[in-house]
Amino acid sequence: MLIQLALDRMTIDEAIRIAQQVGEYVDWIEVGTSLIKEFGMESVRRLRAAFPDHTIVADLKTFDNARYEFELAFASGADIATVMGAAPAVTLDACMEVADRQGKRVMVDLLNTPAPRLEELFQYREAILCVHVSKDQQEMGAGKETAPRWDRMGEGREDGPDLAFAGGITAADLRKLAAWNPSVLVVGSAITKAVDPAAAARLFRQTADEWKGDIHHE
Amino acid sequence: MLIQLALDRMTIDEAIRIAQQVGEYVDWIEVGTSLIKEFGMESVRRLRAAFPDHTIVADLKTFDNARYEFELAFASGADIATVMGAAPAVTLDACMEVADRQGKRVMVDLLNTPAPRLEELFQYREAILCVHVSKDQQEMGAGKETAPRWDRMGEGREDGPDLAFAGGITAADLRKLAAWNPSVLVVGSAITKAVDPAAAARLFRQTADEWKGDIHHE
Repeated sequence: MLIQLALDRMTIDEAIRIAQQVGEYVDWIEVGTSLIKEFGMESVRRLRAAFPDHTIVADLKTFDNARYEFELAFASGADIATVMGAAPAVTLDACMEVADRQGKRVMVDLLNTPAPRLEELFQYREAILCVHVSKDQQEMGAGKETAPRWDRMGEGREDGPDLAFAGGITAADLRKLAAWNPSVLVVGSAITKAVDPAAAARLFRQTADEWKGDIHHE
Repeated sequence: MLIQLALDRMTIDEAIRIAQQVGEYVDWIEVGTSLIKEFGMESVRRLRAAFPDHTIVADLKTFDNARYEFELAFASGADIATVMGAAPAVTLDACMEVADRQGKRVMVDLLNTPAPRLEELFQYREAILCVHVSKDQQEMGAGKETAPRWDRMGEGREDGPDLAFAGGITAADLRKLAAWNPSVLVVGSAITKAVDPAAAARLFRQTADEWKGDIHHE
């Protein structure tokens, strides 16, 4: 079970500082959408340079212009980039193609993906499908029940894509999420806004290491 | 009928140079998603500074974190920012609230918005609904038939939101689009990639001026 540290709503310097504090406890470092839209690819380049041994995830949330955006993110040093599951099929196909050609990976953000489309996304076996309760949903008090019904979708998916979970995940959620055997747990403010980020990250790491979940394609 | 110049897949300097060539023929200048993701809000700030008298559209394509992204774009000088129609309802509500509070506007990008959701979007009367055939769909040879069925949705919408059309629009499309009485026509490469961008923009301007379409909320 890998831990992806999501860095959002901060400067690039703050992102690097927090990631330095907790880097030993996390596997993947995500350059959040808010950093990308505020600072551009400079955010990806600087996190890449500061953390040469971590996997860097560029949370592009691509919805169109897939080749351009994915090539840009990979050229800036990202190992993985994200696309919305709600985007047109041609867009997801283009992301998969660029990633495959470059030996990189695609994370598909399932936020608000229509149910019929969810089923189709299981065809992308090399992708990571990310179940995501959004910031806006969290702020409106929506709970994790707004996420897709993974209790049903998990059935018979032994050969399917890796799963990730994201969105306001706290240490208390870990036990419930374990039932779905996720490969990646995306944690943001539970670490970045903690009084002691390193202690918070260490707790996630310890709990995660007690699971047997592992990622297929690494 | 307003013309929105979409600037994508270029540097900020190139965007400013092209906009200077055609500025007298267009009403709104769109800082494209690719500029925002490559250069961050610096792209919006520089276009704002270079074109103080034009309306600046930040093509954020927000899907989450609406307040943060919209406040960022407006603080950077945008007059209008975009959100995906496929995003959660709470996200669209937050965009509308931020824009309303600041006297700005929201453009809702209808790319791949599920049909039941499309109908609901007509409640956002102060928004601009943008019918969008994506770059990826164009490159895969998908035609404008992939856009929502505006021939049906246009019925009885006299009091509805303003409409915009975007996606590979050429001068030859203008006559067909006129039937939907759009308020805004988004034009990108038909101007920016033209041998003579000013001549191309002038042709769009002349054709648009022959229509009687106008925008409600200006």
